[in-house]
Amino acid sequence: MQFTAMGRDELVDLYNSLKAEYEQIKSENLCLDMSRGKPAADQLDLSMDILKQIIGVYDCKTENGFDCRNYGLLDGIPECKRLFADMLEVEPKNVIIGGTSSLALMFDYITQCMLTGAGLMPWGKQSAVKFICNVPGYDRHFAICEHYGIKMINVPLLDDGPDIDKITELIKDPTVKGMFCVPKYSNPTGITYSDEKVRALAALKPSAKDFRVIWDNAYAIHDLYSEPDRLLNIFEACKEFGTEDNFVEFTSTAKISFPGGGVSCIAASDNNIRMIMSRLKTQTICYDKLNQLRHAKFFPDMDAVKLHMKKHAAIIRPKFEIVLEAFENELAEYDLADWTKPNGGYFISLDVKHCSAKRVGELCKSLGVTLTTVGATYPYGKDPDDRNIRIAPTFPTVSELKKASEVLCLCIKLASIENLV
Amino acid sequence: MQFTAMGRDELVDLYNSLKAEYEQIKSENLCLDMSRGKPAADQLDLSMDILKQIIGVYDCKTENGFDCRNYGLLDGIPECKRLFADMLEVEPKNVIIGGTSSLALMFDYITQCMLTGAGLMPWGKQSAVKFICNVPGYDRHFAICEHYGIKMINVPLLDDGPDIDKITELIKDPTVKGMFCVPKYSNPTGITYSDEKVRALAALKPSAKDFRVIWDNAYAIHDLYSEPDRLLNIFEACKEFGTEDNFVEFTSTAKISFPGGGVSCIAASDNNIRMIMSRLKTQTICYDKLNQLRHAKFFPDMDAVKLHMKKHAAIIRPKFEIVLEAFENELAEYDLADWTKPNGGYFISLDVKHCSAKRVGELCKSLGVTLTTVGATYPYGKDPDDRNIRIAPTFPTVSELKKASEVLCLCIKLASIENLV
Repeated sequence: MQFTAMGRDELVDLYNSLKAEYEQIKSENLCLDMSRGKPAADQLDLSMDILKQIIGVYDCKTENGFDCRNYGLLDGIPECKRLFADMLEVEPKNVIIGGTSSLALMFDYITQCMLTGAGLMPWGKQSAVKFICNVPGYDRHFAICEHYGIKMINVPLLDDGPDIDKITELIKDPTVKGMFCVPKYSNPTGITYSDEKVRALAALKPSAKDFRVIWDNAYAIHDLYSEPDRLLNIFEACKEFGTEDNFVEFTSTAKISFPGGGVSCIAASDNNIRMIMSRLKTQTICYDKLNQLRHAKFFPDMDAVKLHMKKHAAIIRPKFEIVLEAFENELAEYDLADWTKPNGGYFISLDVKHCSAKRVGELCKSLGVTLTTVGATYPYGKDPDDRNIRIAPTFPTVSELKKASEVLCLCIKLASIENLV
Repeated sequence: MQFTAMGRDELVDLYNSLKAEYEQIKSENLCLDMSRGKPAADQLDLSMDILKQIIGVYDCKTENGFDCRNYGLLDGIPECKRLFADMLEVEPKNVIIGGTSSLALMFDYITQCMLTGAGLMPWGKQSAVKFICNVPGYDRHFAICEHYGIKMINVPLLDDGPDIDKITELIKDPTVKGMFCVPKYSNPTGITYSDEKVRALAALKPSAKDFRVIWDNAYAIHDLYSEPDRLLNIFEACKEFGTEDNFVEFTSTAKISFPGGGVSCIAASDNNIRMIMSRLKTQTICYDKLNQLRHAKFFPDMDAVKLHMKKHAAIIRPKFEIVLEAFENELAEYDLADWTKPNGGYFISLDVKHCSAKRVGELCKSLGVTLTTVGATYPYGKDPDDRNIRIAPTFPTVSELKKASEVLCLCIKLASIENLV
């Protein structure tokens, strides 16, 4: 029975029994964390052999004989460029290999646009800079915009991708300079942009001639099931419209090998690669080629990567299912929330229906369960409806996650009754 | 006998015999490179055990139990912070560990000053930004300034450090925002700033309240001899004058472990650390802690680092001596050039006296010997006197270096006679 259909007395009775449960859990002094998209230790164990790839002097050379222990190869070693090119279905010449962080590559790219521009006057010297943010979205994208005073405009993300009509309207404004997208297994909703949406984005004709979409393909191959979502190649889609320069793609092995210890990359048009390299050659001498080579040896081709990702999926799929099962069992019948059932990625997105998400976060915290800061999935940390909660199920153990899901559902019930009564 | 004291006929005769030598060498089709400060392969071999430090799961934890395979510790792992703090004689809290490139840390810091400022209005929004460049200096420093349109003002570097009088005059201009320094074993002259100069720099009172000296201590422990130069700790010197915020120090293990594969760091005042961290937390999640840990395990303390640097010195000292010996034997008696005799670092600086340095570079190139692009040691690549040549003796083998030095001396003689006759 839905809470909204219950009478006041019934709700109060329920509240009291739930509150007893709450007190019981409180006495357990839990310390559980569902806040960040971090792989668990057993996932990291899968990649340990990466660290054994380069031990001796003869391990240090690229396939074309370059010594990775010394300076050089600013855009990356050939085998690593080829691997990422295969992953993103682009040419190796359109790939730059970075350091361990794709976030840093994105930050540096936005910084470059601000300070030296994206082909025109630096964004920072133009009257205003606005970005479209598909919401709910990734807090670290929003943080980059906020850091630089880029005004963020919310556009609700639909089940099959961005709201093209709204975006078409917004990009008539020449101060709207770009957009952040996580096109596959979106953070946090887990949806993948449909072919139609990808084509529609490729077809966009923004007023700003220096418009850039940050195509953060962080979960390009992070499938949970044997029939994964399929994302249309954005650069293929752009060919029809000649809009390749509008998109800069990023990815990394953060959630393939080691978060903060993997390899990142940029894929972009010839023009954008040229512009990025013109900055990079001043910014650094080269990125860490030894780590690139370690990865390229462990992942000789995409088949090796895909096999590896199946091992990740085998570990994290049950965790997603634990959370979804808890929601199904504890929230569905009472109609207390909507949630996504992603085929991949790192998150489940939950929208509470009859209470404040912030209040749920507070209650969880009081029981020792840390959620992603409520509101963080929206620019400026402000969820206008105060309803979205991002669940990151990968880091806790299975038993921790069971407990954490139970606590979360309990807190949603409590907060909902508080609100309804 | 000095060339300038020789008669025309004598010079022509000499020229002809040198030219015959030139033609002989030309027929050898040499391919030698003295252009960049790169360690040779046998130096890199010294550090191979770094790569063996982290193989198994139990190797991946910091001393306080943090798993370096996952996200976290934005400012670096404790043991690495301590190591660099010891190296630079500062507190660990005043150290941030970066990625593999200290150049990138410097670029990112200047970028931050341009875009968000150094405590005041962003440099990029002020009327003009000028930097003092001690010349000859490091081309990649100048490239950062040029990239951002920072106007560079040459101040000749003296034997014991910068020309304080000239600098004192220049910093009366509030648009003079900073200065690049390589205070120990300066690139390229190899000199170390005297205690008096370091104190004088610490005592500077620039008009610009957001003045920053980039203290690039790249060769902090890169001694060639058992009685090394000693650099006064800049932050100690600043204490007397309360000018700690004016200096941001950088170093890396590029020439201790692996160029492009080492660990870099920033040392700065509490204020500057706070400002840098406020940007860093948006720029990235963390740097590569596995590589930090590899280094920290291989270098448990400064004694280990110093012992390691003695091994480097044993390899590269003879190379410096080969070049210096060639100069002494081939150039001294004719008074064709002045050169530095550094106690450490990676370079010898040569000033030709009676010819164009550019012409020497061309002649060397025609014989297959690559020098650092002549002019590169000055801002905008313009050596006003066209006389400075940077010699990087470390990368070639001993026999290559002998040949390259011979070629260089020959070309200086040829160019000098061309010019004198």
